[in-house]
Amino acid sequence: MNNKQKDIVIGMFGFGVVGEGLYKILQQTPSLNARIKKSCIKHPGKKRNAPEELFTTDKDVLLNDKEINVIVEVIDDSTAAFEIVSTALKNGKAVVSASKKMVAEHLAELLELQKETGQPFLCEAAACASIPVIRNLEEYYDNDLLHSIRAVVNGSTNFILTKMFDDKISFQDALILAQQLGFAESDPSLDVEGYDAVNKWVILLNHAYGIVETIDHVLFSGIQNIQLSDAMVAKEKGFDIKLVAQAKTLLNGKVAAYVLPEFVRLDDQLAFVKNEFNGVVIESGFADRQFFYGKGAGSLATGSAVMSDVSALRYGYKYEYKKRYHHTPKELTSEFYVRVYISFDDIKKFRKKILNGLKSGMQDWKEAT
Amino acid sequence: MNNKQKDIVIGMFGFGVVGEGLYKILQQTPSLNARIKKSCIKHPGKKRNAPEELFTTDKDVLLNDKEINVIVEVIDDSTAAFEIVSTALKNGKAVVSASKKMVAEHLAELLELQKETGQPFLCEAAACASIPVIRNLEEYYDNDLLHSIRAVVNGSTNFILTKMFDDKISFQDALILAQQLGFAESDPSLDVEGYDAVNKWVILLNHAYGIVETIDHVLFSGIQNIQLSDAMVAKEKGFDIKLVAQAKTLLNGKVAAYVLPEFVRLDDQLAFVKNEFNGVVIESGFADRQFFYGKGAGSLATGSAVMSDVSALRYGYKYEYKKRYHHTPKELTSEFYVRVYISFDDIKKFRKKILNGLKSGMQDWKEAT
Repeated sequence: MNNKQKDIVIGMFGFGVVGEGLYKILQQTPSLNARIKKSCIKHPGKKRNAPEELFTTDKDVLLNDKEINVIVEVIDDSTAAFEIVSTALKNGKAVVSASKKMVAEHLAELLELQKETGQPFLCEAAACASIPVIRNLEEYYDNDLLHSIRAVVNGSTNFILTKMFDDKISFQDALILAQQLGFAESDPSLDVEGYDAVNKWVILLNHAYGIVETIDHVLFSGIQNIQLSDAMVAKEKGFDIKLVAQAKTLLNGKVAAYVLPEFVRLDDQLAFVKNEFNGVVIESGFADRQFFYGKGAGSLATGSAVMSDVSALRYGYKYEYKKRYHHTPKELTSEFYVRVYISFDDIKKFRKKILNGLKSGMQDWKEAT
Repeated sequence: MNNKQKDIVIGMFGFGVVGEGLYKILQQTPSLNARIKKSCIKHPGKKRNAPEELFTTDKDVLLNDKEINVIVEVIDDSTAAFEIVSTALKNGKAVVSASKKMVAEHLAELLELQKETGQPFLCEAAACASIPVIRNLEEYYDNDLLHSIRAVVNGSTNFILTKMFDDKISFQDALILAQQLGFAESDPSLDVEGYDAVNKWVILLNHAYGIVETIDHVLFSGIQNIQLSDAMVAKEKGFDIKLVAQAKTLLNGKVAAYVLPEFVRLDDQLAFVKNEFNGVVIESGFADRQFFYGKGAGSLATGSAVMSDVSALRYGYKYEYKKRYHHTPKELTSEFYVRVYISFDDIKKFRKKILNGLKSGMQDWKEAT
């Protein structure tokens, strides 16, 4: 009950919207006892809202600074990010990362690194931004009791689908609007084709079930093929369409997990998740159905998640990976059925092209798993 | 990363719906490494679904048993509960309690006891049952950043209001239905008049802001005076009526907190909370608006919260009361305005009786604060 807070001295990689957001938050929140000592950036020429002394282009200045005890990594390049994170952990620094792609790609290695070094690696911002879903899955819902998780984890695609539904505008127009409002990247394919969602899902499968898998073993698709007409069919029948990431425990104890656009009933909690928001529905043995909802995109929502990790580090928090180490981790299975809705303009084209495509797509996926 | 789990040996006070629920859960979940060694009950004659050796009527058998390291207290009598909890903490045992009334009444003493003894005291079940709101408020949302919390914290009243709204039945009929379904006590006044909600709110104010206050200093009212006609007026104007507990930080840095029935817009997250469910909307500096939703009443929902505390004890979790000890705790203020809707059948009666009542009611409350 004494004041056990550690002072946090941060070396931050990246000073984009999230990085700058965090810099501002920490300046406005002295009670956090956390400051950014140095930020490593790629392009020193750019005008930035912070004193010049803050910046360096030499990563070793941060990684070798003994005073810096936390590395915050908010850069885009997942290869560089992994290098930074590994070195930081090996150099005895705690790490906070927002790079879902990096975490998803290097899950097994990151677990090893944390075991070896004993350093905390936190990444709440890597899934559902402002919703504290990773830590809640870590701390609650013992393995035997978690029935299912269903979630809208990608704000950009959810924004696009909402606009198609509510304003009846085409996929293309909705995408442009999302880009204009900053909810989608200039290259939106990572979001639109489901890569971002499945990266997040792989991370959550680890904290929920102790499953360590790559995206190659998770069935996923994005919303790239959804037309306004599909949205209207859904609406007519009393459904919404959402890009839903889900995982459920089957009767054999294995877990079926996938990310697919789905017809969602209007009284489903996920139908409540509009625009750039995210939502997670957790069904567990005794708590029944729980629903977490919050902003899933935007620099402040991401910044707030990074900050909550920094804040947790003051008290020495680290993921215990209980589901993996203290329980029998669950196994992923690809043996499950999904009911599929198919729309087409021309039955002949459908027969030839789409059925073949579907077949080879399923084949690819089966071979991969 | 090693298996640091402690084996939990429980002495449980009470074997009602929640206690029996927990007993069943623990039997079905061996991975928790927790067992109930002994349960202390009041009426030994009753038929119970557990072997007779489990029970005793002597509380000291539990409190003095060296092997028992956790006391779970799920009884109704708040005076007896506090005695049990204090002794248990002093005897070096961790405590899990579901008694909101007891916790709300003895907040300051419980904090002292935890300081003195160093023992954990967890009470997730005491507010919003299955929603992990206490621990989330403890771990997230630093003081400077928490703008407001608004919540539906009482499942019974919310069930009654939902039935009045959706099925247009009278308050009395809705109450009887709630009792039949087990969502309201045979003496429902604690729920209906807002006592249960304000007890929970006092507990949450502590974990959210570090405020330690009794219910005498929090303005509250229940739903006892809401008529079907009020519900219909609200509905006509596009509102719902909810018993809303809220707290917000005012410009002067103080916190205004109260529990009152409120007109809630249909696009408000709280309007989404129907029947016996609870919901919490948290607005914070950077995360923006978050919404947590889950079952707030029923033995399993409460049992699951108790179990999540038991589970957390395996890893040595305790509340740090960060908002109180590591930050400057917030102060409660009674200086704030609320807009009030008043309905009446007879303008004369209203003038005399209700205005006087209102005046003296406000006066009472002012004197108390």
